[in-house]
Amino acid sequence: MPEDNTLANTRERFHIPDGVRYFDGNSLGLMPKVVQLHASNVITHEWGNGLISSWHSAEWRTLPQRAGAKLAALIGARPDEVVACDSTSVNLFKVLVSAVRLRPGRRKIVTDADAFPTDLYIVDQVARLFGLTVDAVPAKEIPSRLDDQVAAVVLTHVDYRSAEIYNMEEFTRATHDAGALIVWDLSHTAGAVPCDLDKSGADFAVGCGYKYLNGGPGAPAYLYVAARHVSACEQPLAGWFGHARPFDFAQKYAPAEGTDRFLCGTNPVIGLSVLSRALDIFEGVSIDDIRGKSLQLTQLFIDSADRQLATHGFVVASPRDPAIRGSHVSLRHTQGYAVMQELSRRKIIGDFRMPDYMRFGFAPLYNTEDEVHQLVDAIDGIMKERAWDKPEYQQRRDFT
Amino acid sequence: MPEDNTLANTRERFHIPDGVRYFDGNSLGLMPKVVQLHASNVITHEWGNGLISSWHSAEWRTLPQRAGAKLAALIGARPDEVVACDSTSVNLFKVLVSAVRLRPGRRKIVTDADAFPTDLYIVDQVARLFGLTVDAVPAKEIPSRLDDQVAAVVLTHVDYRSAEIYNMEEFTRATHDAGALIVWDLSHTAGAVPCDLDKSGADFAVGCGYKYLNGGPGAPAYLYVAARHVSACEQPLAGWFGHARPFDFAQKYAPAEGTDRFLCGTNPVIGLSVLSRALDIFEGVSIDDIRGKSLQLTQLFIDSADRQLATHGFVVASPRDPAIRGSHVSLRHTQGYAVMQELSRRKIIGDFRMPDYMRFGFAPLYNTEDEVHQLVDAIDGIMKERAWDKPEYQQRRDFT
Repeated sequence: MPEDNTLANTRERFHIPDGVRYFDGNSLGLMPKVVQLHASNVITHEWGNGLISSWHSAEWRTLPQRAGAKLAALIGARPDEVVACDSTSVNLFKVLVSAVRLRPGRRKIVTDADAFPTDLYIVDQVARLFGLTVDAVPAKEIPSRLDDQVAAVVLTHVDYRSAEIYNMEEFTRATHDAGALIVWDLSHTAGAVPCDLDKSGADFAVGCGYKYLNGGPGAPAYLYVAARHVSACEQPLAGWFGHARPFDFAQKYAPAEGTDRFLCGTNPVIGLSVLSRALDIFEGVSIDDIRGKSLQLTQLFIDSADRQLATHGFVVASPRDPAIRGSHVSLRHTQGYAVMQELSRRKIIGDFRMPDYMRFGFAPLYNTEDEVHQLVDAIDGIMKERAWDKPEYQQRRDFT
Repeated sequence: MPEDNTLANTRERFHIPDGVRYFDGNSLGLMPKVVQLHASNVITHEWGNGLISSWHSAEWRTLPQRAGAKLAALIGARPDEVVACDSTSVNLFKVLVSAVRLRPGRRKIVTDADAFPTDLYIVDQVARLFGLTVDAVPAKEIPSRLDDQVAAVVLTHVDYRSAEIYNMEEFTRATHDAGALIVWDLSHTAGAVPCDLDKSGADFAVGCGYKYLNGGPGAPAYLYVAARHVSACEQPLAGWFGHARPFDFAQKYAPAEGTDRFLCGTNPVIGLSVLSRALDIFEGVSIDDIRGKSLQLTQLFIDSADRQLATHGFVVASPRDPAIRGSHVSLRHTQGYAVMQELSRRKIIGDFRMPDYMRFGFAPLYNTEDEVHQLVDAIDGIMKERAWDKPEYQQRRDFT
């Protein structure tokens, strides 16, 4: 297959360390080259020289909205429905409390028992504060758990381990049929997998800025609120940046009109500005091309793994059906942890999730077919040479 | 008075824009020169080359604790009682909920009606979640409002407008006498005004990283939890970085042993690393010298204002008693807003707070007596020339 047109030149916009084959864009995206100079400018010129005047002259004030508008284009939202701020966990807290308050009297939150843990923890905290129960079940069972006692559903669009995509329209419809509201976590979606929040009728969403969006380590996260809900939303982290007129220094809180009301404290300017600049890479890139490239890479990996790796005992733990496959592929293997470490020694980087998931992210903006072949050949070689069988590889260390 | 010894060389560690006289370190501290190269290294080397391995090799994981330990030395805390993370507003939410949960059955939160608004908003949100009432009164009346129905007191140590210092030992004792817990906001304290959280028996504190700590625009904030409380604390933003073993990816939350349990989502690495590096300027600097320099500058400003500016109608709105004066001085004047703009045109930067407070911050690490003289002469000159009387200065614009 030929490379897609709009993606032909995106790889060269990233810094790729010497000799590294990087399959962890689903954890921390590569550094866009442009952010080096950009961050230097933010620090030296905007902060160092501009000082407080940069809140206006460098438009620091509108960074959450400007980054949000760029993000909106990737997730099927209106520009004014998304703001970038805080962390995914904090944003989930804000939107889930808002959702629960929009459904008073209902007693349950339903969520995916296999969600990324921080989502489960925040769901539990919100439930505790509002005296609700949590029904944490396999994602596929969620529709069968919905009734008139459910206030909200929290579901990750692309599963962080298997990369299975849960159908946004279907889950949203089922949730609405029960009179509840849905919160989507798009951490493994935005920048790699298409979704259409508005068209699917979604209510709320949150997501992470440092994976396929390449915003840098611990980049600010984002949140989405459907325009039809925002004026009724009461979020609990009502800080001064969410006030209608922050610089009136009013003693009483009055929420800003739109999604701005979901902002809390002073925003992390350097991180937000880096994220916003990194998002410019997506300008002019078609979401269909991104999806096409992602499927091309994941399919090639699965086919090659079937051919070369199945005999070594590797099991593909991601959907074979491309329609429901995100942009990473997990293999399971009892020696998966050791194999990942030997790969890392060879500068081939993926990550590992308990208990035995070897995760390989295929970032449509920069990964290539050639890299996929190198990855599969390397795993094959490691198994043939038993290069995973070193005592130091048995001692677990955290992968992030 | 001679310059203090340990502060003799700190000014030159900051970038001072050409011709600027900067009196707004109480809003956004000057850029320490060292952060330029440092941030460039974090971005290019740690992110760009190290990628996910930098969570270990560059110790990204421990940034909240490492920055926290540096901060602890400035506020009279043990190194393990402070972590840097999130924003001041978010951190206030975490510690205030924790405080309220430690005092079940009590129905009130008492706070300073003139606190910085974001604190008031967060107090209101916590009260709403727990069905409590808020008693917002002038700070001095707080002790008279304390009874066995008060769960927590929230008070800013140095008032953001007047710079009045509220006695930490006395307010803490009064709070404890009523069986309640106290949360201090140290945003206008740390880095300029001494305080001793541990010695005064304080329970919780929060504060901002971008004022006298020079952490950069929207720098991460911090929080303090007295060691005696931490194991009983249940904070509501229980994200995966606060888990005892985040990389077990356990479905159920188990809080980390110490102050780490107050972390929430993935930390903003670039901002945290810049803050942590900026804090190194305080190494080897004595808190007494910082206080001495601060009082020298504020006293000189007040004395000069009395001599040169009182006749123009300026009123000193900060304490004349040095024992209760923080590191900024506010003047009040009906034309204050216009005067600040003309000062700004002359590259003399302070800020303005409604309705008529002209705030001048004197940052002990970099402001000089000579600058104070230039400031007072400039205001005097502006009044004599009526240079404030320009139509464009009557239109309000936000100062941050």
